[in-house]
Amino acid sequence: MSLSERPIGVFDSGVGGLTVLRALRAALPAESFLYLGDTARLPYGTKSEHTVVRYALQAADELVERDIKALVVACNTASAAALPALQQRHAGLPVIGVIEPGARAACAASTRGQIAVLATESTVRGGAYARAIARLRPDARVRSLACPLFVALAEEGWTEGAVAEAAAARYLAPLAGQADTLVLGCTHFPVLATVIAACFGPEVRIVDSAATTAAAVRRELADRGLLRDAGGASPAGWRFLATDGAERFAAVGARFLGALIAAANVELIDL
Amino acid sequence: MSLSERPIGVFDSGVGGLTVLRALRAALPAESFLYLGDTARLPYGTKSEHTVVRYALQAADELVERDIKALVVACNTASAAALPALQQRHAGLPVIGVIEPGARAACAASTRGQIAVLATESTVRGGAYARAIARLRPDARVRSLACPLFVALAEEGWTEGAVAEAAAARYLAPLAGQADTLVLGCTHFPVLATVIAACFGPEVRIVDSAATTAAAVRRELADRGLLRDAGGASPAGWRFLATDGAERFAAVGARFLGALIAAANVELIDL
Repeated sequence: MSLSERPIGVFDSGVGGLTVLRALRAALPAESFLYLGDTARLPYGTKSEHTVVRYALQAADELVERDIKALVVACNTASAAALPALQQRHAGLPVIGVIEPGARAACAASTRGQIAVLATESTVRGGAYARAIARLRPDARVRSLACPLFVALAEEGWTEGAVAEAAAARYLAPLAGQADTLVLGCTHFPVLATVIAACFGPEVRIVDSAATTAAAVRRELADRGLLRDAGGASPAGWRFLATDGAERFAAVGARFLGALIAAANVELIDL
Repeated sequence: MSLSERPIGVFDSGVGGLTVLRALRAALPAESFLYLGDTARLPYGTKSEHTVVRYALQAADELVERDIKALVVACNTASAAALPALQQRHAGLPVIGVIEPGARAACAASTRGQIAVLATESTVRGGAYARAIARLRPDARVRSLACPLFVALAEEGWTEGAVAEAAAARYLAPLAGQADTLVLGCTHFPVLATVIAACFGPEVRIVDSAATTAAAVRRELADRGLLRDAGGASPAGWRFLATDGAERFAAVGARFLGALIAAANVELIDL
């Protein structure tokens, strides 16, 4: 198999990164994808940097052994903690995280430079978004807010209704009048975008990393001459690896991917 | 060290089992305890039985190597999935789970035999509570309900207020008029007992496994002549092991234990 025919590896702690896979597929319809969700050890967002780095390196090794041509770290927590370690270990491979593209989207959208980052505890603690935004737009005022319950709400499918509304109101009250742009800094959060938006006026913009990450991956592959030839014989597609619970992965994942997943297409692996 | 001087090992997926440790300490004030929270891989409640058994065996091995005299499986999910495997592997050791004591408490409390079990997805799927209750009280009508968001609410400390109330109302609506007794079948849920109780009339009883498990442990140690001599020289106490995040363990754990935990007293280990 020529290098450009190989799949793009996508790694996440679980199913949230399927929102990124969805955007990748839209931006790169000719490519094939190999998605790995570390469902046995999710969530990463409440864990220490040391542990997240260790888990991310193991997941990347597994994908690299399966001959990917690029690695997308779809998990914000893993991108924030482990991107330098992953890039160092797989120096020959394009390794792209979601933090820098998310920060870029926020800076482009923000009118007054008042940017709020909604993320997991671990991503907030590490400060990677705030640093990336400060590099791109030194005048920006960044506030970071950990919203761990949003992960559970998204997994439960309670993306609207009284519980989601009350949780959004409680988390977001401190941001009233303090932000012109919100970054959804966790791949679980886009499915809650409507409820989050309802806490603010229409002038507040909401961005996530998915579309800008897909654009960054496309650019990087083009620069390296690694884009798959759309005229190739075999149709592109996606395959899934999970470290636990193929059925749960398929059932919950469909909400994030926006497409059905057959449990039989989810291969269980050990990391 | 004589056998009875050894600590009692207590194992949980994270901090929820500290509600059981609290009850153990109250029932057995002369004993010392070694608590292990597998915080790097929590939660167990959304994971498959196979994975939960593997993790539970690893945690038990670690405690047994540290010379415990009995093992308490404080985690409902691990008790439901792994108790037979743990008892088989450590046949010389008293190994006590929380399901049987919880079922016993429910059967004793229930007036009409209408028992509802609130638990994690994994515990509900496995059906261990329903089987244990049916053995003790064949006439009982058991309904089991997975309430995964309660875990996140308890960890976040949102144990009262609009979010907890809305979540309890949504989960518990199907039980209206259907239960005279509720079992809190996850160690995270006792901190939400007030909000849960408010969804029912005062005639509905709420029980958890903590007190009955502590009584079962006391009985088992007495039967085997393993109770610690209260007149011994060194005062009893507790020590903590965690697989990730000593500071988070101490901060969140205090809510469940009902006592302060110093992060310096939490030893980080690898499983």
